[in-house]
Amino acid sequence: MSDLKQKILAQVSPDLEEIETALRENLTPYLDLVRQAAGHILFSGGKRLRPLLTVLCARICGYSGNYDKTFSVIFEYVHAATLLHDDVVDGANLRRGKSAAYTIFGSPVAVLSGDFLMARALSIAAHTGRMNVINVIARITENMSQGEIHQLIKKGDLSLSEAEYMEVIRRKTAVLIQGACQTGAMIADADAAQENALSEYGFHLGMAFQMADDLLDYVSDTSSLGKAVGADLREGKLTLPVIYALEHALPQDREFMENLIQENNFSVSDFNTFKTMLNTYGGLAYAEKTAKSHVERAKSSLMVFKDSSDREILSLIADYALHRKS
Amino acid sequence: MSDLKQKILAQVSPDLEEIETALRENLTPYLDLVRQAAGHILFSGGKRLRPLLTVLCARICGYSGNYDKTFSVIFEYVHAATLLHDDVVDGANLRRGKSAAYTIFGSPVAVLSGDFLMARALSIAAHTGRMNVINVIARITENMSQGEIHQLIKKGDLSLSEAEYMEVIRRKTAVLIQGACQTGAMIADADAAQENALSEYGFHLGMAFQMADDLLDYVSDTSSLGKAVGADLREGKLTLPVIYALEHALPQDREFMENLIQENNFSVSDFNTFKTMLNTYGGLAYAEKTAKSHVERAKSSLMVFKDSSDREILSLIADYALHRKS
Repeated sequence: MSDLKQKILAQVSPDLEEIETALRENLTPYLDLVRQAAGHILFSGGKRLRPLLTVLCARICGYSGNYDKTFSVIFEYVHAATLLHDDVVDGANLRRGKSAAYTIFGSPVAVLSGDFLMARALSIAAHTGRMNVINVIARITENMSQGEIHQLIKKGDLSLSEAEYMEVIRRKTAVLIQGACQTGAMIADADAAQENALSEYGFHLGMAFQMADDLLDYVSDTSSLGKAVGADLREGKLTLPVIYALEHALPQDREFMENLIQENNFSVSDFNTFKTMLNTYGGLAYAEKTAKSHVERAKSSLMVFKDSSDREILSLIADYALHRKS
Repeated sequence: MSDLKQKILAQVSPDLEEIETALRENLTPYLDLVRQAAGHILFSGGKRLRPLLTVLCARICGYSGNYDKTFSVIFEYVHAATLLHDDVVDGANLRRGKSAAYTIFGSPVAVLSGDFLMARALSIAAHTGRMNVINVIARITENMSQGEIHQLIKKGDLSLSEAEYMEVIRRKTAVLIQGACQTGAMIADADAAQENALSEYGFHLGMAFQMADDLLDYVSDTSSLGKAVGADLREGKLTLPVIYALEHALPQDREFMENLIQENNFSVSDFNTFKTMLNTYGGLAYAEKTAKSHVERAKSSLMVFKDSSDREILSLIADYALHRKS
C-alpha cells in the first residue's frame, strides 16, 4: 500500500467503517435476490470515495448531526447502480477482480437491481428533506445517463476531440463526485462560498479521477486493476492519452494505432507497441499533466477553509486520485 | 371505438393535446440518439392514462395553476422508462404494434435512455418544489423495480399464489397510477381526505387496469393488442385467470396447462385449448369479477367529491380500465 493511501486510511477508517454499516443498513430490499445482486457490486471492495467525500465535506463545513453517513450512501448507491448498468451495456466480464453481476445474475436482474439502487438513493435523498439535494441527484442522473450514451456512440470514432472527451468524463464521472461533495456542504447548511468551493473541489477531483482511471488502462496490469487491462482499447473507447498521441503521431504510427482501435482483438505484442506509441508521442505524459492540473485546482479550491485535519485529508485524496494503482 | 372511449375522449382531448406538447417540450436531451430512442417509446401511441389522471385529479381538487401538464409528464416518463427496461428484460419484440426500442437501438441505448427518462422525471418532480411529490416518486421507483424482479423470478413457478400475484401487480403497476393521482391532489394542495380518496382511487384503478391487461392476453388478438398475444404464457408469466383455473382444474387438464406454462413454444391449437380451459374452470370470469370489484372501489372512492364533470370522467376512466381492447 502506498504511503499516501496509508496516511489517508489512518485518518478515515472510523468513517469508512460507519459508511460500510450504513451501506448495509439502508439497502433494505424485500427480495433476497435483489440483496444478492445489488450486494454483489456494492460489497466488492469499492473504495467508498464518494460517500467518504460527503462525510468529509459535511464535517469541514461544521456538520454536527447524526445523518452524514446515512446521506453519504446516496452516492455509493448511484455509483453502484451505474456500474450495474454499464457492465451490461459494455459487456465487461470483470469488475473489481470479480465476475460482473450480470454474468452471475443475468442482465435482467442486473438492470432491475440497478433501478432499485437508484430508487433507494432517491428515497434516502428525500429523507434529507432538502430540495437542493434532490436537484443535485436529478442533475447527476441526467448527466450520467447521457454521458454514458455519448461515450457509447463515440466508440471507435477516431475523430473524438479532447473537448468532447472532457465533456463525456464531466458528465459520466465528475458530476457525481461533485454532487457528493456539494451535498456534504448542503446538509451542513454551509454558506454559498463554502458550498461552491466544495463543488469546485469535487468537479476537479472527478475530472482528475477519471483521467487517472483512463491512464490505468495503459499503465497497470489486470491483477492490480481488478479488470482486464486494454479493455478501453478493445471497446474502441478513446481516452486522453490516445487522443493526444493520435494527433501527434507520424502517419504510419497513426495508421497502426487507428487499426488497433478499430479491431476488437489484438495480440499482447500489438498492445505493447500501442502503449509504447502512447509514451513516445507524449500521450501518457499529457494526460498525466492534465490530470495533475485538475488535482491542483481541486486543492486550491479548499483554500477558503482554514487549515484543519479535514482539509488535509481532502487535499491528500486529491493527490491520491492521481497516484492510485486501481 | 367504443362508446365509453368516445365519451371520455370528447371531454379530455384538449388536455391530451396539452399533455402531448408537454411530453415533447420537457424531454430535452442534448443527444439526438436519446431523443430518438426515448421518443420511439414515448410517441408510439400510448394512452397517456397516467398524466391525464394527474391533470384530472389536480383539477377535481381545485388546482388553478399552469403547471399541471408539465408535472403530469413525470408519470409518462417513468412509465416509458420502465417499458424500455422491461422490453430488454423480457426480450419482447413488439410494443404497441411497433418494434421494441432495444431491437432498433440496441439494449445498451435502451437501458441508458430508460435511465435518462427516469432522471428527467425526477428533475421535473424537483420543479414541483414539493418533498411529498419526491417521496411519491421514490416509493414508485422502489416498488416498480422490485415488482418487476419479483415477477421475473416467479416466471414458470406453478406455485404462485393469488396473494403473491396481487402483491406483484400492486408494485409494478398500481403504485405508479396511484402516485399519478396522488400527485395531482398534492400540487392542488388538497386536504388529506381528498388526497387519500384519490390515492385509493388510483390504487384500485391500477389493480383493475393490470388485471384487465393480463386478461387481454387471453381474450384479444395480436393486431388489436399491438403486441403478441399469448406472450405471458410463452414467458411462463402466471396471471390471475391462470392461477384460478389451475386451482380448479381436473388433474389431467391441470397437467396439460402446467406443461404448456413450462414450454417456451406451443401450437395455436394448444393455446386455444388452454384458453378454453381458462374459460371452463372459471379463470376468466374470476379475474373479470375481481377486476370489476376494484373498479367499483375506485369509483366509490370518488364519492368524497361533489358531482362534477371531472368526477364523471374519472368514473368513466375506471369503467374503461375494464372494457378497453388494448
